[in-house]
Amino acid sequence: MSKYIYTFGDGKAEGSAAMKNLLGGKGSGLAEMNLIGIPVPPGFTITTEACNLYTKNGAESTFALIKADVEQALHQVEELTKMEFGSAENPLLVSVRSGARVSMPGMMDTILNLGLNDVSVEGLSKRTNNPRFAWDSYRRFIQMFSDIVLDMKPTTKEDIDPFEEIIESVKHAKGVKQDTELDVEDLKSLVVKYKEAVKAKTGNDFPQEPQQQLWRAIQAVFDSWNNDRAKYYRILNKIPEDWGTAVNVQAMVFGNMGNTSATGVGFTRDASTGENIFNGEYLINAQGEDVVAGIRTPQQITLIGSKRWAESQGVQEDVRKTQFPSLEESLPETYLELKNVQEKLEQHFKDMQDIEFTIQNGKLWLLQCRNGKRTGAAMVQIACDLFREGKIDEKTALKRIEPNKLDELLHPIFTPEALKTAKFVAKGLPASPGAASGQIVFFADEAKKFAQSILVRIETSPEDLEGMNIARGILTARGGMTSHAAVVARGMGKCCVCGAGALNINYKQRTLEVGGKVYAEGDWISLNGSTGDVFEGKLQTQEAQLSGDFGLIMDWAEKYTRMYVRTNADTPKDAQVARKFGAKGIGLTRTEHMFFEGERIKAMREMILASDLAGRQLALAKLLPFQRTDFEGIFEAMNGYGVTIRLLDPPLHEFVPHETAQQQELAQEMGLTLEQVKQKVHELAEFNPMLGHRGCRLGITYPEITEMQTRAIIEAALNIKAKGLDVKPEIMVPLVGNVNELEHQLKVVRKTADTVFKERNDTIHYLVGTMIEVPRACLVADSIGQIAEFFSFGTNDLTQMTLGFSRDDAGKFLPYYINNGILKVDPFQVLDRQGVGKMVELAVKNGKSTNPNLKVGICGEHGGEPSSVEFFHIVGLDYVSCSPFRVPIARVAAAIANLTHA
Amino acid sequence: MSKYIYTFGDGKAEGSAAMKNLLGGKGSGLAEMNLIGIPVPPGFTITTEACNLYTKNGAESTFALIKADVEQALHQVEELTKMEFGSAENPLLVSVRSGARVSMPGMMDTILNLGLNDVSVEGLSKRTNNPRFAWDSYRRFIQMFSDIVLDMKPTTKEDIDPFEEIIESVKHAKGVKQDTELDVEDLKSLVVKYKEAVKAKTGNDFPQEPQQQLWRAIQAVFDSWNNDRAKYYRILNKIPEDWGTAVNVQAMVFGNMGNTSATGVGFTRDASTGENIFNGEYLINAQGEDVVAGIRTPQQITLIGSKRWAESQGVQEDVRKTQFPSLEESLPETYLELKNVQEKLEQHFKDMQDIEFTIQNGKLWLLQCRNGKRTGAAMVQIACDLFREGKIDEKTALKRIEPNKLDELLHPIFTPEALKTAKFVAKGLPASPGAASGQIVFFADEAKKFAQSILVRIETSPEDLEGMNIARGILTARGGMTSHAAVVARGMGKCCVCGAGALNINYKQRTLEVGGKVYAEGDWISLNGSTGDVFEGKLQTQEAQLSGDFGLIMDWAEKYTRMYVRTNADTPKDAQVARKFGAKGIGLTRTEHMFFEGERIKAMREMILASDLAGRQLALAKLLPFQRTDFEGIFEAMNGYGVTIRLLDPPLHEFVPHETAQQQELAQEMGLTLEQVKQKVHELAEFNPMLGHRGCRLGITYPEITEMQTRAIIEAALNIKAKGLDVKPEIMVPLVGNVNELEHQLKVVRKTADTVFKERNDTIHYLVGTMIEVPRACLVADSIGQIAEFFSFGTNDLTQMTLGFSRDDAGKFLPYYINNGILKVDPFQVLDRQGVGKMVELAVKNGKSTNPNLKVGICGEHGGEPSSVEFFHIVGLDYVSCSPFRVPIARVAAAIANLTHA
Ligand SMILES: [Mg+2]
Ligand SMILES: [Mg+2]
Repeated sequence: MSKYIYTFGDGKAEGSAAMKNLLGGKGSGLAEMNLIGIPVPPGFTITTEACNLYTKNGAESTFALIKADVEQALHQVEELTKMEFGSAENPLLVSVRSGARVSMPGMMDTILNLGLNDVSVEGLSKRTNNPRFAWDSYRRFIQMFSDIVLDMKPTTKEDIDPFEEIIESVKHAKGVKQDTELDVEDLKSLVVKYKEAVKAKTGNDFPQEPQQQLWRAIQAVFDSWNNDRAKYYRILNKIPEDWGTAVNVQAMVFGNMGNTSATGVGFTRDASTGENIFNGEYLINAQGEDVVAGIRTPQQITLIGSKRWAESQGVQEDVRKTQFPSLEESLPETYLELKNVQEKLEQHFKDMQDIEFTIQNGKLWLLQCRNGKRTGAAMVQIACDLFREGKIDEKTALKRIEPNKLDELLHPIFTPEALKTAKFVAKGLPASPGAASGQIVFFADEAKKFAQSILVRIETSPEDLEGMNIARGILTARGGMTSHAAVVARGMGKCCVCGAGALNINYKQRTLEVGGKVYAEGDWISLNGSTGDVFEGKLQTQEAQLSGDFGLIMDWAEKYTRMYVRTNADTPKDAQVARKFGAKGIGLTRTEHMFFEGERIKAMREMILASDLAGRQLALAKLLPFQRTDFEGIFEAMNGYGVTIRLLDPPLHEFVPHETAQQQELAQEMGLTLEQVKQKVHELAEFNPMLGHRGCRLGITYPEITEMQTRAIIEAALNIKAKGLDVKPEIMVPLVGNVNELEHQLKVVRKTADTVFKERNDTIHYLVGTMIEVPRACLVADSIGQIAEFFSFGTNDLTQMTLGFSRDDAGKFLPYYINNGILKVDPFQVLDRQGVGKMVELAVKNGKSTNPNLKVGICGEHGGEPSSVEFFHIVGLDYVSCSPFRVPIARVAAAIANLTHA
Repeated sequence: MSKYIYTFGDGKAEGSAAMKNLLGGKGSGLAEMNLIGIPVPPGFTITTEACNLYTKNGAESTFALIKADVEQALHQVEELTKMEFGSAENPLLVSVRSGARVSMPGMMDTILNLGLNDVSVEGLSKRTNNPRFAWDSYRRFIQMFSDIVLDMKPTTKEDIDPFEEIIESVKHAKGVKQDTELDVEDLKSLVVKYKEAVKAKTGNDFPQEPQQQLWRAIQAVFDSWNNDRAKYYRILNKIPEDWGTAVNVQAMVFGNMGNTSATGVGFTRDASTGENIFNGEYLINAQGEDVVAGIRTPQQITLIGSKRWAESQGVQEDVRKTQFPSLEESLPETYLELKNVQEKLEQHFKDMQDIEFTIQNGKLWLLQCRNGKRTGAAMVQIACDLFREGKIDEKTALKRIEPNKLDELLHPIFTPEALKTAKFVAKGLPASPGAASGQIVFFADEAKKFAQSILVRIETSPEDLEGMNIARGILTARGGMTSHAAVVARGMGKCCVCGAGALNINYKQRTLEVGGKVYAEGDWISLNGSTGDVFEGKLQTQEAQLSGDFGLIMDWAEKYTRMYVRTNADTPKDAQVARKFGAKGIGLTRTEHMFFEGERIKAMREMILASDLAGRQLALAKLLPFQRTDFEGIFEAMNGYGVTIRLLDPPLHEFVPHETAQQQELAQEMGLTLEQVKQKVHELAEFNPMLGHRGCRLGITYPEITEMQTRAIIEAALNIKAKGLDVKPEIMVPLVGNVNELEHQLKVVRKTADTVFKERNDTIHYLVGTMIEVPRACLVADSIGQIAEFFSFGTNDLTQMTLGFSRDDAGKFLPYYINNGILKVDPFQVLDRQGVGKMVELAVKNGKSTNPNLKVGICGEHGGEPSSVEFFHIVGLDYVSCSPFRVPIARVAAAIANLTHA
């Protein structure tokens, strides 16, 4: 028979930290603290298995199963505390708390002082010699129990808690403001009125029997596992239904029993900076809820903390010492005990701990301990310090890194001083992290107008690329986390706030109106791309400080990873940035991004509008030198590493002008009529361009494009080789779904390369491979693998096609899907393992079946997302490629994946 | 060691009909005819394996390998014919012909009279006592051999054959018109000139050595297997490279040796009607090429055929008898022999034979026999007749049916008389078969203007649906075989000609201009949807005659099929048509097609433009009765059979008006401003609507739509049940990619149905299932299968997403892909087995793994295409569903698949 109850207390415990799944986080922590000699009020934990039984079989059979053990455990608590449940002399009071494996909002949290009734309240009064404390505790317990267990809590924001209503009317009648101004008689009459309210609302008397109180509280915890809010939270956070929650029943201790009592929270290290210094806050003569209420100012635990606090708040030392003394000063002995306890806990758990404690009449009790939440900077600092202190080894330290949090360290931020006085303007989505200030421009081609500009657009388009690169930051009124602006900005590592719906942008007047205030071109604004905040004026920023510890983490990542990390970069500048972050080569260069600047777009349009092959070749010849120069820069930056260059991919429609003025201009340049240009633009329009004439379909129907691009790549490679550098070009054919497509392009590439080799009387080794991004390609990857030298997964398109989601249109249903639990995460951010992942797996398996030496990587945006990187490690990819600023994140994620799945 | 040469002659043969792969169609036929005692000129076949060796290893080693055997075989021919290769007295002449497994244009066909040279021409002259015949044969041989083997054939249409040039100049000099007017001396001088031309062009003398002639001819046949045209043909027709071609070398016989010589072709039955009557044409004193040249009128073989011919041509009996006698009359004994031979052949091959014969001096020789090509009507008639005659069994008869050819029998056709005088206007694509005449209308909403109208549009859109249904036929200037007009018309079984590019349609003037001639609204035109022809005026049509034999075929199909066939039908009328064709239920009712008519579209638009739930519900309530009525009609027509109704699928943008006038109208009706309507229309526009807010994504974000549709279905079902009929509704959720989507819709459906059941105090059994059309659905079909009661593959969308081809846009590259062999067939017409098929297979396997009773069908257009139907049989589907007029085709295809893969 299973064991459903685990007791703890007085340095003993049936459970331990290892039993988190069975006892929940809180329960296992309480047990473990007992085991290592930390003072914890005695109690017991009802297991998550009991919760599952309850969910399955209901209360009657479940409670029958555990009743005897609960009574036995409670009896043990009575013995340890030398108190008695429901006693009129020396009553035992308990707290009842839920405790799942992870803390979960939406569930029942805590009932305190359970065991109080009309009899035991007198006992408490006697024992503590404090009638006010006893009656105040009783009226609080009635309210808490009734709200939570008897369902008297208001269900809407408009409704008023019936108990709050009563207490307000009592205070009003007496003419006082604070609860603390009520005396014992007032509290006694409150209890009477509270009980009347319960009777009126529920039809029953408030339960006086402590056993009944206890079982109803236990049931309420179990029920709360399945309430709507908890279910919703589980869906959002991918928490399985069958984890269940444990219930912790524990003897009450009181921090509000006088001036040698206190309550507080602490951290064994600084959660914000990572500094190795014990810190936290406490209040003398208070309960936990008083800290939350915010009526009294919490004081610092340590003297040094207290002094730092006083300095930052401008509090004089004499005021601090008398009014806000540290625990170190006010209760020095207990402080020393607490200091030892926190040291012991960190030593034991080998990580920074977040603790809750209560001091009752000078006696210290720990109520909770857990690994503390921390900032990215603190995460790095603490992991490295713990390693240096010999507490954890390299591997453990590395696994302590949440890769996504490194992002905080990689971008400039506003100084805390600047933020203090900043005037908030609007909030958008935190589309691309970092902080930037600049003068407003409304048009991409005017980004150069100011030395520091912020490009403000309703939304951006590929034509804006050059301007986006010049501007310090980008702000849009429309579009989500995967809109053009967001994706491009993240790729550039440029600060971007997207979809700030409150903005009214008027391109004609060149103004931005928000909340009644109008900003004009040239006005300064500041963006925080990590939070989505938009501020007025120019705020001071501080650069990212890639400290020595950051480098240490990267060294470990290098040491323990199996996959290597490349970058997606379209310019020599991006390539250089990525190299600094440790990218080993380029996984994706989108040649088309090179086509939008100045003269290039003209030649590109000329090519598109040409009526025959000769005309196209003429225009392509103009593009060739531009491409070659770009490639040379990239090859130089990636000396010694592979550079994957994708042949032209987007539909041609993206390159032609869509406004009449520009069309007119183009018509004149090309000696065409406006009508002819309009006609061509119209012809290029497609119903579903994502599935239209693009990718290798362009290179196949217009082989001259592939020829030109191959020539540019090979010529650039030979030029850089001639400088003595090591060039490793990899030519990637996009959107292949059929081996014949790749074969066609392969022939064009090989033939062109051979021609260049002959012309130059020199050769270079290069690879030809394909992007795997059409579902069909995964299914026939065995045949494609026979002629491809590498695969690179384009998981953006693969996600679009496998799920049938147009990324540009998914805004109409994807948020609804995520908010309603139909999808757990945005599949464009986190790889959909069941669907797209399955395709990736199939393709790897099929491809390697015919070509065991096939090099396989991924160059979609998922390449920089830790959970996706983990998946790519599991399915055996050779590398991931991501935007430059995600490279460190991907490197750490890849290393952790390797350690986790060793 | 392999055997590369197979001899035949004098009633003996080393090969047989069973050796088609090795000997080619022609070679195996020649061998088999020998074996069954049919007179065939002796000869031998060089195997396809020799061809493959040649392709692989080249001429030298291959010819070394076969040389001795070829000489040996040639010697045997000399012995049998008692003639000698290259003899000055009695020269053996041979023909050299290619012969692959299937006949293949683009390859070298035939060289006749090989063996002639300056010496043997004299021998031929002596032996035949006909110098003119001998020298005419020699000059023809030089031309044929030089053109084909020596590559002197002109390569472009503009170039003139050098030999034609010479003969024309000779005739011109002599002042005659016909070759036949040249005498022996003329021919001798021609030979001299021809040989000079060869020397001038090739630098070498015309080869005089017969052995050399033979080997060069053999080599030319082998080479022709790999010429560009042959390769191209193989790509188009999916013929593997490694089939190779055989070479047939055979003693010449001559039909042009006088009035007891003749040449002809015959069919053992009528290839057009299937009538069991021997028929064919011949010419006295002629060679095969004379029949082709068309200078002389070919005569009928049989007397009855001759009389029928005379009657149809208005030739008097005395004229017929004297000038155009039948073979039966002119050479009665040989005729009898021929008649016996054809009977013997049919009896032997158990199928209608197409034969070629030559009569040399009264002696009959068969040169070829093969299964004859035939019309759809003849195919049915012959298969049934052969069965009744006891020659083949039911299964064989059924397998003789090419399902696609049944289409010819299902639609009205123009009478032959009408076609004779019809004035051709233009040619388009044969988008939907049948014949129709009507008066031109240019707008769908004016289709009722005339009792019989033809809707003429540049292209059609969903708004035109009602008008398309009313018109007799549809003609468009743009769009391919899978354009909107084509797909919808085929679905309706309505005659349609698409993409007739020569048409200039002017909507404003309501005119259609083509080739300078203008047709106005109200003018009569006629369409042949089976050929793509457009005619002027009103042509007489005759209805499809579904003869008794057609019924017999259907009975066999019923008997031998495993899968059953449903239909895709959106109206009660379509449902009735399909029932007549044997559909067992409906596999797809597209509810949205019901939304376009009259009042309905108004309510639909009201729903879309409503600003809140209440507004949408109000509009939906207006749609409900329309839907219910439609469903009632469909349920009635399908009494006893399942009816699958798909919930709303297309993006809402398809339903709103896109022209200002209509938007204005809508604005007024709804009390909105034009701006508001325009804004809403703009908001609904999507970048890639195919992958946007559609399918179940609509039903999930607007559950009230699913509620309304469910209510309409269930109410209709209960109403029809109340009439005593058997109703089996199946509700299908489209575009599911995730089990949560289906679960969401399932709940809405079940809840709504339960509500209706309560209201009516009655229930009905219904199924809820899903369309499998998103690739992801196939990958997670195990989880979807747990809650779906059926799967129906939407292979149109599945093809779009798996291949990444937007059907509406693929016109820009798909034709190029097919013409260049990158794709073998249009994947929207024939299921892509490697890609989409793999997905289907996966989904069936996954789905049945969790739900063994899962019903699985397919309702994409592939459901009516025989090769796709075969695939669906192989992967174990329960049924296919297709448009009503494809039902018989699918039924036969399904039965044949079952017989083939038994
Ligand atoms: Mg892509
Ligand atoms: Mg579909």
